[in-house]
Amino acid sequence: MATIEDVAKLAGLSRTTVSRVINDQPYVTEEKRQRIIQAMNDLGYVPNSSARRLRSQRTETIAVLLPRLTNPFFGNLIEAMEEKASEWGYQVIVCQTHDSKKKEMDYLQLLKTKQVDGIIMASLVNDWEVVEPYLESGPIVFCNEYMDESCIPMVHMDHKQAAYEATVHLLEQGCKQIAYVTGGPESHLSKERRKGFTSALSEYNLPFIEDMTIDWAMDVSDGQKVFHMISNEFTQVDGIFTGSDEVAAGLIYEAASSDWRIPDDLAVVGFDNQMLSLLMVPSVTTIEQPVKQMADKTVEVLIQQLLHPGTLPAQKYVFPHQLLIRNSTKRKKLSIQ
Amino acid sequence: MATIEDVAKLAGLSRTTVSRVINDQPYVTEEKRQRIIQAMNDLGYVPNSSARRLRSQRTETIAVLLPRLTNPFFGNLIEAMEEKASEWGYQVIVCQTHDSKKKEMDYLQLLKTKQVDGIIMASLVNDWEVVEPYLESGPIVFCNEYMDESCIPMVHMDHKQAAYEATVHLLEQGCKQIAYVTGGPESHLSKERRKGFTSALSEYNLPFIEDMTIDWAMDVSDGQKVFHMISNEFTQVDGIFTGSDEVAAGLIYEAASSDWRIPDDLAVVGFDNQMLSLLMVPSVTTIEQPVKQMADKTVEVLIQQLLHPGTLPAQKYVFPHQLLIRNSTKRKKLSIQ
Repeated sequence: MATIEDVAKLAGLSRTTVSRVINDQPYVTEEKRQRIIQAMNDLGYVPNSSARRLRSQRTETIAVLLPRLTNPFFGNLIEAMEEKASEWGYQVIVCQTHDSKKKEMDYLQLLKTKQVDGIIMASLVNDWEVVEPYLESGPIVFCNEYMDESCIPMVHMDHKQAAYEATVHLLEQGCKQIAYVTGGPESHLSKERRKGFTSALSEYNLPFIEDMTIDWAMDVSDGQKVFHMISNEFTQVDGIFTGSDEVAAGLIYEAASSDWRIPDDLAVVGFDNQMLSLLMVPSVTTIEQPVKQMADKTVEVLIQQLLHPGTLPAQKYVFPHQLLIRNSTKRKKLSIQ
Repeated sequence: MATIEDVAKLAGLSRTTVSRVINDQPYVTEEKRQRIIQAMNDLGYVPNSSARRLRSQRTETIAVLLPRLTNPFFGNLIEAMEEKASEWGYQVIVCQTHDSKKKEMDYLQLLKTKQVDGIIMASLVNDWEVVEPYLESGPIVFCNEYMDESCIPMVHMDHKQAAYEATVHLLEQGCKQIAYVTGGPESHLSKERRKGFTSALSEYNLPFIEDMTIDWAMDVSDGQKVFHMISNEFTQVDGIFTGSDEVAAGLIYEAASSDWRIPDDLAVVGFDNQMLSLLMVPSVTTIEQPVKQMADKTVEVLIQQLLHPGTLPAQKYVFPHQLLIRNSTKRKKLSIQ
């Protein structure tokens, strides 16, 4: 049976080049690609993915760790990552951590057990000391999540600046008592958002009120609960920063069966520009993340690490966001201006 | 260094029982569990997941193949499957096929390459002849999708009956011209739904009109397109069966900026009871699938196959659904009745 070496010999090209053609990887001229395909045909060489993987000790598989699939932001991120990875002949598997330190570690084990070649962490609840040892087994890149103390590539947007802009927008719409509603663990990302929020408040000489802070709101039903808390206990609140379109949607849905009007009594800002934010009545003001660009860059960086280990510095790739102003914050009395 | 055999010897129990305790699997009495833990402590035995996997040639990993993560039905399915699998010490990885025959096969390869121990197929576009050979490498269970000719366990609901009930409901609300709007490939599941739809029509002596059939509608933006087609070309349509809450949401969203009233001019039925169907104005009549029960049964059946290969027959597990009637079909003139 013909081997990859036979193909390389007959085509007069290197084994690496043949391998590139087999794996549909870029950077091979069309002329060389044709010569290799001709040689493969002449020899009756059929690359067998399974055998190839076993031989090479490579799996051509990348794992993406993320907190939860039910958040559409991550669905869209995976969609884009898969498309990019498949251009390089890699398949993507998805692992849900539920922000559990143990699960995150369990899935990092996939590197050690050689079930995957590299890992993208869009979930990050462990400290750097916990993550770092896994680098011995393969490359890791952070996406969306980030931490300053790490020494690996990070792809994300500026969450501090995004939260700052969303809060300034609420203040410009006349909000005086803005509740800060987020969920999930105290990741670097959420700390950054909180910095942006407080910095906007202090520009307007407003204090950050701990009482009006909620740290457990993750989905639509949490948003409904938050609305009841506010309408019962914190009636002075006139604006809400949420870290999630789902939470914002829950708030808006629940307000509809009350006498609170959105945005006049309560202006609401979401995050991520999920389809839901557009479908709600009123539509939800939100932050658009550059999902596709972040996904592309993350995969590109990881695959560069796989092809040329150790060549990339621990660079930060920061992508721009956009505040999309919709009806959940456009107050009538101000929209006349 | 102490081995698992040393632990078994000292505890006076079998290697299998020790293995069960290490893997947090059920069916070990508390007394035996304590004896084993004591023996492990006495010997300083620390089970190493990575080494254990390499040694046992098992990965303790299950792959779930599904068409697309951006459909929240699958997000919820995975959520429940992971919870169940972790009770048995298995982790779940998720693979998105985009209903591509090639991708489905690529991910089935994970069995051959020993990257996973078993596979759950909630995506099924290949013929049985294509899927069957992979059974040599490990067990496969179908979930949601199904096909009569296979000889493996299948967990699903009765899509024919569900579509029948949804269509009868539209007819009872006075709809005379019902469009059939679905997406995705001609899977067994979609054929079943279509049978249910046509069988309801013929009970009411109405024909199935091919012109009013759309087979490419998958998400919200497709739903928007469908609304424009109907309002421009098929103005006689007064009811729509969709296979998806997202498509229904897109239709309803787009109708809001037209002079079509929902449900009076156009009654719309979704599928899956996604959160979105409740949040829309008007709320969407839909079919609730027993996601949690289906997920639990699927994982249970697969793990039984893993623990006791070849013991389970190719049984069908069919779970009940529920039609949830909401405002997108409750026509005013009829709701007085």
